[in-house]
Formats: sequence, C-alpha cells, structure tokens
Amino acid sequence: MIVVLKAGTPSEEVDRLSGEFDGWGLTPEKITGKHKTVIGLVGDTVDLDALQIQELSPWIEQVLRVEKPFKRASREYRNGEASDVLVSTPEGAVTFSQSAPVVVVAGPCSVKRAMIVETALRVKAAGAKFLRGGAYKPRTSPYAFQGHGESALELLAAARAASGLGIITEVMDAVDLEKIAEVADVVQVGARNMQNFSLLKRVGAQEKPVLLKRGMSATIEEWLMAAEYVLAAGNPNVILCERGIRTFDRQYARNTLDLSVIPVLRSLTHLPIMIDPSHGTGRAEYVPSMALAAIAAGTDSLMIEVHPNPAKALSDGPQSLTPDRFDRLMQELGVIGKAVGRWEPSPALV
Amino acid sequence: MIVVLKAGTPSEEVDRLSGEFDGWGLTPEKITGKHKTVIGLVGDTVDLDALQIQELSPWIEQVLRVEKPFKRASREYRNGEASDVLVSTPEGAVTFSQSAPVVVVAGPCSVKRAMIVETALRVKAAGAKFLRGGAYKPRTSPYAFQGHGESALELLAAARAASGLGIITEVMDAVDLEKIAEVADVVQVGARNMQNFSLLKRVGAQEKPVLLKRGMSATIEEWLMAAEYVLAAGNPNVILCERGIRTFDRQYARNTLDLSVIPVLRSLTHLPIMIDPSHGTGRAEYVPSMALAAIAAGTDSLMIEVHPNPAKALSDGPQSLTPDRFDRLMQELGVIGKAVGRWEPSPALV
Amino acid sequence: MIVVLKAGTPSEEVDRLSGEFDGWGLTPEKITGKHKTVIGLVGDTVDLDALQIQELSPWIEQVLRVEKPFKRASREYRNGEASDVLVSTPEGAVTFSQSAPVVVVAGPCSVKRAMIVETALRVKAAGAKFLRGGAYKPRTSPYAFQGHGESALELLAAARAASGLGIITEVMDAVDLEKIAEVADVVQVGARNMQNFSLLKRVGAQEKPVLLKRGMSATIEEWLMAAEYVLAAGNPNVILCERGIRTFDRQYARNTLDLSVIPVLRSLTHLPIMIDPSHGTGRAEYVPSMALAAIAAGTDSLMIEVHPNPAKALSDGPQSLTPDRFDRLMQELGVIGKAVGRWEPSPALV
Amino acid sequence: MIVVLKAGTPSEEVDRLSGEFDGWGLTPEKITGKHKTVIGLVGDTVDLDALQIQELSPWIEQVLRVEKPFKRASREYRNGEASDVLVSTPEGAVTFSQSAPVVVVAGPCSVKRAMIVETALRVKAAGAKFLRGGAYKPRTSPYAFQGHGESALELLAAARAASGLGIITEVMDAVDLEKIAEVADVVQVGARNMQNFSLLKRVGAQEKPVLLKRGMSATIEEWLMAAEYVLAAGNPNVILCERGIRTFDRQYARNTLDLSVIPVLRSLTHLPIMIDPSHGTGRAEYVPSMALAAIAAGTDSLMIEVHPNPAKALSDGPQSLTPDRFDRLMQELGVIGKAVGRWEPSPALV
Repeated sequence: MIVVLKAGTPSEEVDRLSGEFDGWGLTPEKITGKHKTVIGLVGDTVDLDALQIQELSPWIEQVLRVEKPFKRASREYRNGEASDVLVSTPEGAVTFSQSAPVVVVAGPCSVKRAMIVETALRVKAAGAKFLRGGAYKPRTSPYAFQGHGESALELLAAARAASGLGIITEVMDAVDLEKIAEVADVVQVGARNMQNFSLLKRVGAQEKPVLLKRGMSATIEEWLMAAEYVLAAGNPNVILCERGIRTFDRQYARNTLDLSVIPVLRSLTHLPIMIDPSHGTGRAEYVPSMALAAIAAGTDSLMIEVHPNPAKALSDGPQSLTPDRFDRLMQELGVIGKAVGRWEPSPALV
Repeated sequence: MIVVLKAGTPSEEVDRLSGEFDGWGLTPEKITGKHKTVIGLVGDTVDLDALQIQELSPWIEQVLRVEKPFKRASREYRNGEASDVLVSTPEGAVTFSQSAPVVVVAGPCSVKRAMIVETALRVKAAGAKFLRGGAYKPRTSPYAFQGHGESALELLAAARAASGLGIITEVMDAVDLEKIAEVADVVQVGARNMQNFSLLKRVGAQEKPVLLKRGMSATIEEWLMAAEYVLAAGNPNVILCERGIRTFDRQYARNTLDLSVIPVLRSLTHLPIMIDPSHGTGRAEYVPSMALAAIAAGTDSLMIEVHPNPAKALSDGPQSLTPDRFDRLMQELGVIGKAVGRWEPSPALV
Repeated sequence: MIVVLKAGTPSEEVDRLSGEFDGWGLTPEKITGKHKTVIGLVGDTVDLDALQIQELSPWIEQVLRVEKPFKRASREYRNGEASDVLVSTPEGAVTFSQSAPVVVVAGPCSVKRAMIVETALRVKAAGAKFLRGGAYKPRTSPYAFQGHGESALELLAAARAASGLGIITEVMDAVDLEKIAEVADVVQVGARNMQNFSLLKRVGAQEKPVLLKRGMSATIEEWLMAAEYVLAAGNPNVILCERGIRTFDRQYARNTLDLSVIPVLRSLTHLPIMIDPSHGTGRAEYVPSMALAAIAAGTDSLMIEVHPNPAKALSDGPQSLTPDRFDRLMQELGVIGKAVGRWEPSPALV
Repeated sequence: MIVVLKAGTPSEEVDRLSGEFDGWGLTPEKITGKHKTVIGLVGDTVDLDALQIQELSPWIEQVLRVEKPFKRASREYRNGEASDVLVSTPEGAVTFSQSAPVVVVAGPCSVKRAMIVETALRVKAAGAKFLRGGAYKPRTSPYAFQGHGESALELLAAARAASGLGIITEVMDAVDLEKIAEVADVVQVGARNMQNFSLLKRVGAQEKPVLLKRGMSATIEEWLMAAEYVLAAGNPNVILCERGIRTFDRQYARNTLDLSVIPVLRSLTHLPIMIDPSHGTGRAEYVPSMALAAIAAGTDSLMIEVHPNPAKALSDGPQSLTPDRFDRLMQELGVIGKAVGRWEPSPALV
C-alpha cells in the first residue's frame, strides 16, 4: 500500500500517521518528494482496506494498492500453476483446466419438457460434455416467464440420465441451493448475482463446483474477489465465465464480449476460464466467430446456447444456435482446437 | 411493439407471422416499405417479451418496443399523479413525495457502538428525519469487515428510541429480513442486489417501505422494472435512490452521479426520488455541491453519509461529512430548499 | 512518480533502474516491501511520461503518477486563485469566473437567416449575454446539413450588431479559424475535436478566448490536458464546458450530464466552468432542472439551446427551448442564482 | 423511419404530420394502436435526419430508424460482396479483403533513426507486408514527444526502399497530408480524429487508401458513418481498424478490444477489417492471444507494434513486442491462419 499525502501536509500529521501504521504492525517508509510526501507500507497489507486507511486523515490524497487484494484466487497462491477443476458426470470426471482439452457446455436458455432430452442427445453427439439449461431464470420483468423451477430440475435429471452429460444450472436463491445441487454437477451463479455476497458464501459452503459468471459491469478485480468469497468459504472449485460486459454500444451486439480476459486472467489466477459467446453477443450469427476466437485465445471451456425448435423450424432464437448449426460449429471449433493442441476427438468419431 | 423484418423476407413468412400474432389476440398491421416490411402489433403488448417475439423467425431483424415495459411503476398507472410514500417514525409519519418538503436521511456507513446514538442526535438536531446505518455490509472482499449484524440492529433500535429518527438499513439476505424489518422503518435494497429478483420479491411481500438503490450499471428501465417486482409483489411503497453509475472515468469521483434521473424519473414514474451524493461521488468534498444541485433539480429526498470521529478528530472519511460540516450543509441546503419551496424549518429553529 | 516493480525483480535490475533515474536528474528512493520493491522518483516529474518509464524494463509492473500531469491548467499554477476570463462584447467586457455572476449563453444549434436576429433579441431581453449558433456543424452523416458556413458568419455578425450580444461559434477546421475569429468573441472547440491536437495548438496561437467542450468519453484529466495545449500555445483564456458524457444508458437522456465536474474542476483548475444541459440531456424537457442544478452546484456559466419556430408553432425541437420557455427558465434560474449570490439583475428589469 | 407519437396526440396533429411527410415525397402509413399512434415513412428515407423529424412536433415521442444511415459503406451497396482494397507497395499490390490472406502490419509506435530500417527488415523477414510508424504522434500532453515529423517521413521512405514494405502512417493535420501521401502507401486517420469531419473529407479527396481507426467511444454506426465521409468524398479504399474501446475497466488491459466487430462489420459492410491488439490491450503480454483470436474470428489484417531496443535489451515497451517475440508470434499466427485457410507462406520459408 502506498499512501500519498496532499501537498502541504504538516510534518506532525505525517508522524502521527506513521505512528498509527506502526501500531498496526506495519513498517511505514517515508519518501519526501518535491511537493508531496508518500508513505509506503511494508508488511502484511493484503487484508488492509484502502477506504479504511483513507479515513485516517483528511491529508491523505490517495491510497494506492500495490499488492493484489485477492489471495486464494491468485496465481501465486498455487506457485504459478493452474488448477484442475474436476467435475464428476455420469460418464466420469471431466477436467476444466489450462492443461486439458477445451470443454464445451451447450443447451437451451430455459428448460422445457418437449425438447430437453432431445437437445441433450444432440449436443452430446456433437461433442459437448455438459448440458446447460435454466430451471430458475433471472428475468428483468416480473411478468416474464420465470422458469419451470423444480419440475425443470426433474427434466434436467432425466436428460442427465439419458445422455450421460453433466448438468450446469443457475441458482438464484439460496433456499433452492440444496435441490439444485442434487441434480446439478456444477452450480452457476449468474451475472446479476456476482456480488450477492450471501449467495457466494452459501455456494462456497457446499461441495459442487461453482461456475461464476462475470457481472455485466464488474471489473476483473471485483470478479476475482467474488471468486475469493467462494474459495474463502471452503470450495476450491471455481470456474470463471465471461459473458459480455455492458458498454456504450449495444445496437448490434447486445453486450461486448471481453476476450482479453483470457490472457489477463491467465496471468492473475490459477482458476479455469469459460467463455459464453451466446450471451456475450446476444445474436446467434455472431456466436461462431467469437467461439473460434475464444479457443484461439486460449479459453479452457465454452458455453453455447443451443435450442431445437421442431414446431417452428425456421427459428433458432436471437442468440441460440439450432442443433444443426451447432454440429457444424463443433467441427469448425475442432479445426482450431486441434491447431492449438486442445481438442479431444468427438465420441461420435472414435 | 413493432417488428422489423429483414429485406427480402418472403411474403409467406410475413403472412405466417401475422397469423401467429393473430393467434396471440393481437392485431398485426403491416407496412410495406421500399426495402423492408414492418409489422405493428396493436393490442395488449405490455406483457410481451421482445426476445420471445424475435424467436419466431430468423427473418425478424429487430423488435422495437413502443409501449413501456413497466406498468405499476409508470406515471400513467396513477393518472399522472405522484405517489406519497408515508413512513411512520417515532415522531409520526414522514412523507416522501414530489409534493412534500425534501426529506434528509443521514448517518454513518456502518453502525458501531461508540457513536451511533451521538450521531443520531447530531443529525436530528440539524434537521434530518432518518438515520441510515449498515448492520450488514456488502463488501467487495471476503476479508473486509462485514458489519456487526444483529448487535448493530440493537444499536439502531437504541438510536431510534433516543433520537426519534426513523431508521433505514440494508437487507442483503432474505433470511435477515424479518429481524431487520423489526427495527427498520425503511428497508434498503442495495445497488449490488438491484437485480436479485428473489430478494425483490421478498421485500415486496412484506410491509415496510422499500428504498431501492440503482444498480451501478442499471438502465433507468431496468431500475423501474426492479421496482415493478416489488410493486407486483404487493408493496406499493418504493423510493428510488440514485447513487452514482459506473462510467469510464473513476479517477476523481468514484462514480458518476446521474442527476438527470430526477427529471427523467419524474416523467416516467409516480414514485418518489432520493439522491445519494456520498456514494455518488465517493468524496466528502464533492458532496455539498451535488446535494445542492439535487434539491435545485427537484429531488424528494437526500441520503448523506455523516460520521463523527472523536478519537480521530481530523478525519471525516473519504466520503463522510463530519457532523459540523453536515450542520453547515443543512443550512446551505435550506437556502436552496426554501428558494424552490420545498424546505421545512429545522426543529432546532422552531 | 512511483514505479512498482514485479515480485522477484533481481536487485541488479533495481540498481540499473535507479542509475537510469539518477541520470535523468531525479532522486530515486527505494522501498523494499515484503513481496515487491517500489521506487519513488523525487524531483521534477511533471514532464515524465508514464509509458516511457514503463519501457525501461519488463520488470516494471506499474507506474503511478502522484503529481498531476497538467501545469498551467492547475489551480496551484495560480496559487489557488480562480482566473477571470474577460470577453469583450459590443456592450463591454463580460467576465467568466468563479467570483462573477453566472453568464448565460443561448441560441440555436445552427444559424439560419429567418430567425437569428429575432432569437438574439429575445434571448438578450431575457438576460443572456452571448448568442451561440453553429455556422459550421459537426454532423455524423456526410449527407446531413453541414451548416451555412461563411454566410452564417455574416448572419452572426448582424445578430451581434443588432443585439449587442457576444458571439460563440465553433471552429471545426483550422482553415476557417481566421474568418471565425473575425466574428466570434469566443471560439468553440467541439467535443469531437477535443483531442484534435493540431486544432488546439491553432486556437491557442490566436487571441480570442476558447470554449473547450469535453469529449464524450474524455476523462477529466484528458480534458485538462487538452486545455493545457491551448494554454501552452499562449492563450490563457480557456472556458471548460461539460456537455454530457457517453455511458451505457442512452434511452431517455442522450448523454449523461456529469455535474460532478463542477466541484472536481473547482479543486483541480483555476479555469471557469460552463455547463450545457441541452446537449447534456438531449431533451428540452430535462434542460430546466439540469440548468437549475448546475447553478446550485456552482457553475460559472450555462449554454442553453433556444430555437424560435414561428412557422411550426408547436415545436421546440428535441433539445431546444422555445423563447417563451427560455424566458420562464431565466426567471427560475434567477431564483437559484440569487439564493447563491451569483445573479445579475436582468437588464429588462433594471 | 418509424415515428412514434405520444399517447393522446390529437388527430389533427397526426394529420398535420402526415401532410408534412407527404410534402417531403414520402408515403406516411399510420398504425393506430391501443395507446399510441405510429407513422411509418415509406420512400427514400436514408438521407432523413431523425433529429430533424423530431423537431416537427412536440407530440413525437421517438423516431426509430429502420433503414441503416450508411449507404456506400453498406454490404448491400456492393450486392453483398466484399471489396478488395488493393495497395501498391514496392513489391507489388497487396490486397486487403475477406477473400485474401491475412495481411500483417508491424512496426514501432514512433519512428526514430536508430532502428527503423532494422525493424523494417526484421518484420519483413517474419512475413509482415507493411511497416507502421508514427511521424506525427497524437499525444495527450503538449509536453510529450510529438513525433519527428518530416524527418521521420524521410526515414520511413528509406525503410520502404530498403525493405520493400508498404508504409502506413498517421495524418493528424490536413496541412501535412500531401507530404505524408508522398511517402505513405496507406494514410491512417487515428482514433481521436475519427469524427474530425474536415480531415475525413480531405483524405477522401486524395487517392491513397485510408486506414480508419475506430474512435475510443464510437459506436459501430458512427464508425461506418465516418467511413461514409471518406467514401462520399470519392475515395473507395477504406480499411476499418478496431483498436480497443473505452470501458469501465482499465486496470489490466488499457482498452477493451472489441473482437465482435469482426462478425458485426462483416454483416454490415463490404470494407476490409483490421485488428490492432497492441493498442487494443496496451500490454505486450496480451497481444499474442488477441492476435490469434482475431484471425480465428476472421479478421482480414492485423496491426502489431514491434520495437527493437538493442541498447535496452530487456525492454519491449508496455505494448510493443520485441522482434524475437514477433517472429514467434508470426509462426503461431501461421498455425491458426493455415487452419482457417487464410495464410500465405512466409517469404523466408518459400
């Protein structure tokens, strides 16, 4: 931590502050500049709160953090090594990791009886390892469809049994967590709840791996601090999922998919990375090129929205691919995936 | 709703879509332009979901909403009249409304034994009607102080009894709601939980008025839809509080206080408006001019962070005013408040 | 400047860097922390370029500026005193300053023969001191009306003569500067040209005062650095005009008017401040409350779009007030202006 | 264009507006909804200005554009075909196009004698086709190095002759355009000048192809309208370069590289696309993965900052690669480039 004092700070105030920091067990080192004085705090500063320091004196102009505020999520915490998040599925453990093949998660936005098993079988055949699907849906409007809840969980369980895929589904309310964790292989915390700290503590206190989506205006640091909540609560298995951030331009793509998180997170954290180009762009036609880009950039996994619609054959939804388009996409992804050495042969082709 | 079709949409598809809308009980009206066809949907479109319509056909280029997506929160819902949100306090009901004097809420960020009663008495003497103070604190870091919880609620109850002020405090987790509602006169939903839809339904199902802070990247429409969740769950008493939005520049002011919400909300909704310049700027020295601006622009209430610090006399925290500065601010606010005809004489002066 | 080195930086590299800084005439002061080493640079660091420093070594993690990068624009440059920008008009000098009455600038977006003299007389009668009006217009589309150019300058000269108002008009191209400066009392650099450094140097090399609008995504610091270009080129008379920034929500207000620049700029710079609520919100109905707020917050001047439209009597344009609405607004502004002690009696009332 | 009227608009006003549109040669088609009336404008609406329409009546709530505002830049303008922008270089024409191999542009940020020829030879050997380098530099501070100007142009000419590479360099001021166009094979308009409409007209009126960088807060539509200025002025050879946009998070990556422009632009325009991951991220260590992603996503060209620094061997600058790292990157890019069928064998390897 570096404490920058305003020009003209009286030397008694500098001394008083130094004394205060001494009392906290830190070693304050003073630099007297031409205009300003700066105090560097040497010692265990990770737990310090910049705002709390700023409260010490009105002469403090700025408090600059030199150390990262996250610990367990940091790459250094594992001596520079990536973590392997192992998820058990009906067909064995699947590994999310920088050193494993890219894992593809696919499925519809919300789960309906008519099609969930069929979708599961289709995306499985194309090479997906996990089925995603919402039983509980975060909806902007209280009048919009809120998901089928418990009955949708049963459908997911049936699709899991029929296909052998693992299940990823979102928890919106801690009271549903137990029911969800019975069915889900990975519990998802959505973008709107990324800073619902109560929920983060709860998913951290249970055993299923957690998929943590980035809040739509969360900084990388806030996102890693949200992961830190889960890790600090005892659950070491967190996957970080970028799903588009909110920017000034929302006319063509609904969000701005921030693919630079791939190299940024790689340098900051040991946790595995997922990219969701479906929510990230909001338009099915932009999904394939962003999925390809994500693999080339080094993502560990992808989440793709796929939605069959036999009755409405022309439709694939604004951000969902049809199963046919998904089949083709998986082949395209395989080309890049193999080129970067991170693709597992499709089961259909073995 | 207006459905814009892509250039070249086959006429059979236009007919198929018109038939579909007919089946929904809507009257589709077709405009055939030079390049594009547009279908206007006449009828009860408020509950329609633009995304759901877009799923009907890949030929749909855009779905434009002409009606607002919120109902109960809309100004039209009360035939253009503002609502009065009455809050009972130990000293009688206080009204938040466009037609009432400006209500000032003041107090520290988090509640500590040493100073909460003293602060309550000080801000009461200066003219505040409510004490704010966090018992449960949303903190970016799991290692930071998370609030004193239940014991802080007891302190708030004591401050309420001693001062006669109403109490506003935040709920972060539905399990704490009952305990909080026993002490609080107004229950606050914080910016990070503005789209925690489970929590919105819960505070909508209880009786205490709700202070709904704007999410840091929430659009006005998303904010009003969050209010709609509370209203639709049965609680008509919602106050909307602007606390700064997240923009590209965070160097001097921590957030960008969006004062234009005052005229914008006034035209869209009947609900009363609060402005929080302390979180909105993040720096005590910018709070007074933004509080003055808010009153001139027509706000119905203000939330100001005030923090006494007898042991650390020099300090007023990065965004908190000292009680002395708050006293002066109340006098400055009175000058503008009287000029616009919305100021009640301070009890101290009566 | 504070140079933060990566964990594990070899001590020879720390020494090499210290030597380098020594060679630049600076005194490097080293703080060795638990994990990281930090070098504070003592000396004349205002001209240093953080990026240039970062190029010195791949071991440099961050370069933190403690000094401000602007000099002539800084409040300290005038020992904490505000500047007076005096502008001569046909009726004498008008002062833009923190210690002068609020100056109101009004007029249409673009200048047309039919109405410019009439508008000038109307806004003059209501108390405006300057007429604004575009002869050259920045337009997003090459097919949109680009302003009447030279003939509009003649109209502005006529309006100036007829009304006695000063003239403020925008320069978009350095080749027009001389012609514009013959007519204009203040030369405006628009938001889109705020970082057109060639143009900044040119307006800095001529004598008319400069109105510098904030770029739509310019940080406060970039804005002050743009002013620094003008000041460094020899022109000390710069007025800073906030006109709304670009954020994620553009549905109701077209831009987000950032009123917190008023206290922020006040603490950083001696230059006078103008607020433009017409561009700042993009909607006439929101202009009055934002203009009132700006005065309460302490602005030195206002720019208001006013547009008479006798043939289309119902219309006042999306962001323009009618002359009648402007008359009323000036009375409303007077109430707040007098309350804060910064209003000059309207000539009509003297 | 769709004109949405406010609820309660009198029918005479609807008729008056319809008459007005008739007079403009458009066919107004009226849809009377439950609450609101909507007028669809059929005819040649591309040149219409939404703001101008809104000025027609205060009863107009919104004007929605259904047609795109750009013509010559639109994909439809070339019947869905991509354009080939051919640039002549000392070694023959190089094609920027969706149907050509990826073109790589490399070089230092600013041109200095010591290294420009050497850099040119190095990047040429690695497979680059163009040398980039600034003679005139846009700098935030007037006190920072502004580029070597004309003498740097001579150095670029020498590097061109020595290496056979084409030259891309930025024009900041129209007065330098002729000199620059004598040396440059492609003239660059920088992000800060993207809406310097005078400059756009000038580069549109000369013959060298134009590289148009996206403004840091420009929407896709504003960017294409800037291209439209160049096209409308007579120059059909425009390359669009994404270089990162400004968002709320600037801590790790300096800008947010918006790779989704690749599929978005592909569907909207026939113009070729370039991605600049060096400015787009601001950190050399993030450049390789973003460059790989860009090729996988379908970019037509890349601009990479490369800077040799023999005297300061450890350094590659915050966003520049060393020539050695660039050599390796070109091999990595070749793997992806070949996988997607858009890579030309390196001359060194032929």
